Amino acid sequence: MTAFPRFTALAESLPPTVPFVGPETQERARGEVFDARLGANESGFGPSPSVIAAIAREAPLSWRYGDPENHDLRMALGAHLELSPECLVVGEGIDGLLGLLARLIVEPGTPVITSLGAYPTFNFHVAGFGGKLVTVPYRDDREDLDGLLDAVMRENAAIVYLSNPDNPMGTWHPATDIVAFAKSLPETTMLVLDEAYGETAPAGAIPAIDALSSMPNVLRFRTFSKAYGLAGQRVGYVFGEAETVSRFHRVRNHFGVNRLGQAASLAALEDQAWLQSVIARVAAARDRIADIARANGLAPIASATNFVTMDCGGDGARAKAILDGLVSRGVFIRMPGVAPLNRCIRVSAAPEAELAIFEQRLPDVLAALM
Amino acid sequence: MTAFPRFTALAESLPPTVPFVGPETQERARGEVFDARLGANESGFGPSPSVIAAIAREAPLSWRYGDPENHDLRMALGAHLELSPECLVVGEGIDGLLGLLARLIVEPGTPVITSLGAYPTFNFHVAGFGGKLVTVPYRDDREDLDGLLDAVMRENAAIVYLSNPDNPMGTWHPATDIVAFAKSLPETTMLVLDEAYGETAPAGAIPAIDALSSMPNVLRFRTFSKAYGLAGQRVGYVFGEAETVSRFHRVRNHFGVNRLGQAASLAALEDQAWLQSVIARVAAARDRIADIARANGLAPIASATNFVTMDCGGDGARAKAILDGLVSRGVFIRMPGVAPLNRCIRVSAAPEAELAIFEQRLPDVLAALM
Repeated sequence: MTAFPRFTALAESLPPTVPFVGPETQERARGEVFDARLGANESGFGPSPSVIAAIAREAPLSWRYGDPENHDLRMALGAHLELSPECLVVGEGIDGLLGLLARLIVEPGTPVITSLGAYPTFNFHVAGFGGKLVTVPYRDDREDLDGLLDAVMRENAAIVYLSNPDNPMGTWHPATDIVAFAKSLPETTMLVLDEAYGETAPAGAIPAIDALSSMPNVLRFRTFSKAYGLAGQRVGYVFGEAETVSRFHRVRNHFGVNRLGQAASLAALEDQAWLQSVIARVAAARDRIADIARANGLAPIASATNFVTMDCGGDGARAKAILDGLVSRGVFIRMPGVAPLNRCIRVSAAPEAELAIFEQRLPDVLAALM
Repeated sequence: MTAFPRFTALAESLPPTVPFVGPETQERARGEVFDARLGANESGFGPSPSVIAAIAREAPLSWRYGDPENHDLRMALGAHLELSPECLVVGEGIDGLLGLLARLIVEPGTPVITSLGAYPTFNFHVAGFGGKLVTVPYRDDREDLDGLLDAVMRENAAIVYLSNPDNPMGTWHPATDIVAFAKSLPETTMLVLDEAYGETAPAGAIPAIDALSSMPNVLRFRTFSKAYGLAGQRVGYVFGEAETVSRFHRVRNHFGVNRLGQAASLAALEDQAWLQSVIARVAAARDRIADIARANGLAPIASATNFVTMDCGGDGARAKAILDGLVSRGVFIRMPGVAPLNRCIRVSAAPEAELAIFEQRLPDVLAALM
């Protein structure tokens, strides 16, 4: 019997690629687990103890569907952001919400702008709906706002993606520049402002809520996966102008957010003291990673995120060799996928025990490359 | 400023409806919580204690993304089903997987067949991709296999949805009839066989794995939400012929399944003794619900699921009045949405304490309707 013949032409045209290979896949290939998990910008500082307690408390109620309105979490987020809850939708991580956003706007051929080397999962979703992805090179390791705007105008783009702070470089733009960029866009272009790393950014990097909240062509995406330490829970949120945000309800999987994730995120939001302590530890870990980099002749790039990207002083092949050396020695890291960013490796902030392993093994890796 | 003008025409055409209103929404409207939660076919018997322990054990690792390959769970399911793991994809509940399936096959105008009054979330996803949904009435409170096949041929359908056992009626067809139905379909029609309630079905109702596993136009959907007692975790799976199943990888959200859900589902699968005890308790609860129904002059329909649907002996207005009466007295139940099924109410199997509340309040409701 032959293959099922009625998948859409678009589905048949999609490659079987995946945006990221998980560390567990690499561990299975290696036959042993990593000693240090520094590749996925997870927060090894963990969620708050109060969050772990909330999960344990809710676990016996896992037989109940979560509230499809995510009501309690949405109310708490609204209060936290001083934003009407109707301007906010909770979803299955930023990844899930980006998929919905692509579905709402992208059709075959729809022009979409992003930076060359920026978040692969966004690209995956755009390609998944047949969009025409146009990329703009980074400039000085930052997303190039002028270049993005030029591309938007030239391509008559329906979406422009911007991560601030940026992944994979860790750099950022000041809030004033982000707001100016947003306001310079045609109202026919949606700004997807990915603020996954917003909590660890310096003062002045993140626009005030009301600076953008009335613009129908701006959506801001945030997550409990990074500083809040809940990557495994798959809870993110998007906020913006109410009418724009309401479109997500037409296509979202209403019961999609898991119940323990709701409870954990609510508890995490309530424990701002833990968040502040994590932010301080992330800042210290960034300094520590930068010191290790410099001690080994690598050049750390100033970071507003929970990771440090460092220039390995060569081309993509050299950075890849360093990455491979670390991975083969039990240190999970990642690196940017395209030139010139791929002269760098990316190391996530983590507790000292894991950074010490990185510090210990990096010289061996570099020595082996001599 | 006006609304964002570049949502797709399809997105703009979608109504803001939702497939189900959650009990929490009703509780907020009522200003008090339900005393008995018998409306969503959740398993009040709960997950296994070993599952709750597994969740608690994994909770401190919630900072890690789940394995995007769902490897351990997929291997365990493969062993359990005696199926190659490449024939199996894990996703964010059957709801999430149905959304992906619709995306893979449905374009504006694509004909899709389902039964009139069957699972609304499937319809939501088909409509969400612009499909032409054609419905076939139930016959004698069962999905009408002959009618469905006729509609498939007449409409040249790309998909036919069949739930066995059925929701919302609780009825079923023998496996031999399901297999015959599958084999009678043109190979241009995908059978979506929803087996969410398969664990509680009688012997002989569920086709053997290998009876359908080589057919590229059959996909079987199962879940940890029902008998396994993990509705809140959002973990379901789909299996079938490897090439067909592989299409999900092209569009799925690779990191979409939450980490605690993976751990919980794996532990649930390993505790088959708990599953068997729940199945026995569900059977006893079905009998108990049927007895309560008969004692009050309602006619229970024999059920293969974890709920009992009962004929209220009138039209939709009478059943709705009974439902409203129960809801206003703190008993959450649901009912089928369309005639003639909507002469019934639907009551989920649950522990005795909640069934006793149903037993106590139903006579009051009926008396108030006299």
